[in-house]
Amino acid sequence: MSVIYQKVALIGLGLIASSMARAMREHGLAGEITGHARSAETRATALEIGLVDKVFDTAAEAVDGADLVVLCVPVGVMGQIAEEIAPHLAEGATVTDVGSVKRAVIDAVGPHMPAHVHFIPGHPLAGTEQSGPRSGFASLFVNRWWLFTPLEGTDPAALDRLKSLVTAMGANVDEMEPDHHDLVLSVVSHTPHLIAYTMVGVADHLRRVSQQEVIKYSASGFRDFTRIAASDPTMWRDVFLTNKEATLDILGRFTEELFMLQRAIRMGDGQMLHDYFSRTREIRRGIIEAGQDTDAPDFGRVPKKGEG
Amino acid sequence: MSVIYQKVALIGLGLIASSMARAMREHGLAGEITGHARSAETRATALEIGLVDKVFDTAAEAVDGADLVVLCVPVGVMGQIAEEIAPHLAEGATVTDVGSVKRAVIDAVGPHMPAHVHFIPGHPLAGTEQSGPRSGFASLFVNRWWLFTPLEGTDPAALDRLKSLVTAMGANVDEMEPDHHDLVLSVVSHTPHLIAYTMVGVADHLRRVSQQEVIKYSASGFRDFTRIAASDPTMWRDVFLTNKEATLDILGRFTEELFMLQRAIRMGDGQMLHDYFSRTREIRRGIIEAGQDTDAPDFGRVPKKGEG
Ligand SMILES: NC(=O)c1ccc[n+]([C@@H]2O[C@H](COP(=O)([O-])OP(=O)(O)OC[C@H]3O[C@@H](n4cnc5c(N)ncnc54)[C@H](OP(=O)(O)O)[C@@H]3O)[C@@H](O)[C@H]2O)c1
Ligand SMILES: NC(=O)c1ccc[n+]([C@@H]2O[C@H](COP(=O)([O-])OP(=O)(O)OC[C@H]3O[C@@H](n4cnc5c(N)ncnc54)[C@H](OP(=O)(O)O)[C@@H]3O)[C@@H](O)[C@H]2O)c1
Repeated sequence: MSVIYQKVALIGLGLIASSMARAMREHGLAGEITGHARSAETRATALEIGLVDKVFDTAAEAVDGADLVVLCVPVGVMGQIAEEIAPHLAEGATVTDVGSVKRAVIDAVGPHMPAHVHFIPGHPLAGTEQSGPRSGFASLFVNRWWLFTPLEGTDPAALDRLKSLVTAMGANVDEMEPDHHDLVLSVVSHTPHLIAYTMVGVADHLRRVSQQEVIKYSASGFRDFTRIAASDPTMWRDVFLTNKEATLDILGRFTEELFMLQRAIRMGDGQMLHDYFSRTREIRRGIIEAGQDTDAPDFGRVPKKGEG
Repeated sequence: MSVIYQKVALIGLGLIASSMARAMREHGLAGEITGHARSAETRATALEIGLVDKVFDTAAEAVDGADLVVLCVPVGVMGQIAEEIAPHLAEGATVTDVGSVKRAVIDAVGPHMPAHVHFIPGHPLAGTEQSGPRSGFASLFVNRWWLFTPLEGTDPAALDRLKSLVTAMGANVDEMEPDHHDLVLSVVSHTPHLIAYTMVGVADHLRRVSQQEVIKYSASGFRDFTRIAASDPTMWRDVFLTNKEATLDILGRFTEELFMLQRAIRMGDGQMLHDYFSRTREIRRGIIEAGQDTDAPDFGRVPKKGEG
């Protein structure tokens, strides 16, 4: 494929940025890649492992002359980065972000954007529980959705160009209204994460079951929660603080249903439980049919040999 | 390896039984395998795909002359099967079960067991979300725990022989007190399952987010829940009804913690959220170090090519 942006500036050099860097290099989509991250350590690593051609101590320097700027920092610092880079953005540059929440990013970043740049908020629905510059890989976005929540009056050509970049990295593109994005994500990602964190926290606090027992017997159920609950604390703190309304809304629905099932257990209402559990199977089938997950049992996970 | 039991009777021919059958055949651990399941269809399938040497229309016939009987049915029907087979059990036979709850099985099965058999309750911590005679595979138990909750006065030789069978299938063996087993399992498996079912149910009921959207954007978080929530409704209904006390206990703890996190979100207490999410990472690390899960990002799951 051919170069889509001459100079791409990645602000934040963690999982998402490093995956983008690798994917852009693999497909030859960027003429040059510059980067900035908070710590000298991350910046040095990014240079050392060849994620970027140049790193800069400030975001302002990194965006200089870039025709694409990608904000790959936690949602809570997007605004301050935007303010810092605003005076240094090139004429006609596109600024996008990869934040997991969209309304809060639009509110924080939007006001700082000068009229001569295209600000196009985005969110790749792709990730792992790992973080940092070494965690990225080129295929992260393959067959994953990359959602854009463009503002009114967005230049169609700038949007198309950005879409062509992410599709060239293997993603499927969709557009959504920002508030609806935040609600959908609250259902499919944010609330499940909070619940997983909570369940792992309960196990951790319980005196009658030792942590060693929890670890030892984690197969089947719990360990899936621990994977989710191993995600980056800063990223997730920011997600919950900035997608507060939708999260509290869905959490309310969740506890309502949980209390209903809890009552069915208490009352011994087997029919109700059976009906409920039968309906939830359908959604799984839909996900596998839509190609959004493997249908191999237990994710095709293979046990490691040795002491268990 | 050499034959450990001359004749093994598998009552119930689903995921666990078919995995045991395949593992026993692969390692030559059973002289002969007989089986029984409720439906003619399952019985025919089990014979056709060579899980068992003979199938019988009744459990009573299947156990005739067996030196090992394994109850592989949902927890709620263990008692009725035990009653049915009791008069037909061979002198000195071992009867074990693979039920996910132990106290209820002991209470339901124990009283029917004649003095001339060894009843040794067990539970392999291994499974997938699939079920039925075709879902089994020989390596299911490799490096997984197989817990026994032996009753007082259990014959050590009979227990050792049973342990040698499951270790020959690749499992690691441990002993536990039945009530403690039920509490531990409630934490590491039963409550997480209920929570996953609930979250998937919430998504299903929500009008403002379509089922199609849920399916389409399920990556990262939700789809792990859907896998768990695709497990067999009958098995899980029985688990919750028979492990009621521990489940309600852990659920109470869970909602308590969830409300605390919910309040932190409402109040904007980022420090509290960050601290909580940092602690849960530790448990994950322990699980990976204990070899209980893969450390590949996202379980090493590879996206399928094609439409997403
Ligand atoms: N992980 C996922 O599953 C996922 C999926 C989709 C979208 N997202 C979104 O993508 C964004 C980045 O997530 P990630 O997973 O790539 O995170 P990550 O691996 O933790 O990386 C975050 C990066 O941001 C940098 N950073 C943090 N604060 C900064 C600041 N004030 N100034 C400059 N750089 C700063 C960090 O620098 P240091 O290394 O120096 O600390 C690090 O390089 C977040 O908004 C998240 O919501 C994440
Ligand atoms: N799946 C797991 O992850 C897992 C893990 C550890 C332990 N366990 C325990 O293992 C046991 C079996 O689970 P599974 O996953 O193997 O279930 P499964 O695949 O659904 O198979 C259950 C089997 O039991 C048979 N059955 C049900 N009711 C019966 C009755 N009244 N009489 C005779 N046969 C009957 C079924 O026959 P039909 O096919 O004719 O209906 C089927 O062959 C359960 O106690 C469960 O708690 C399961």
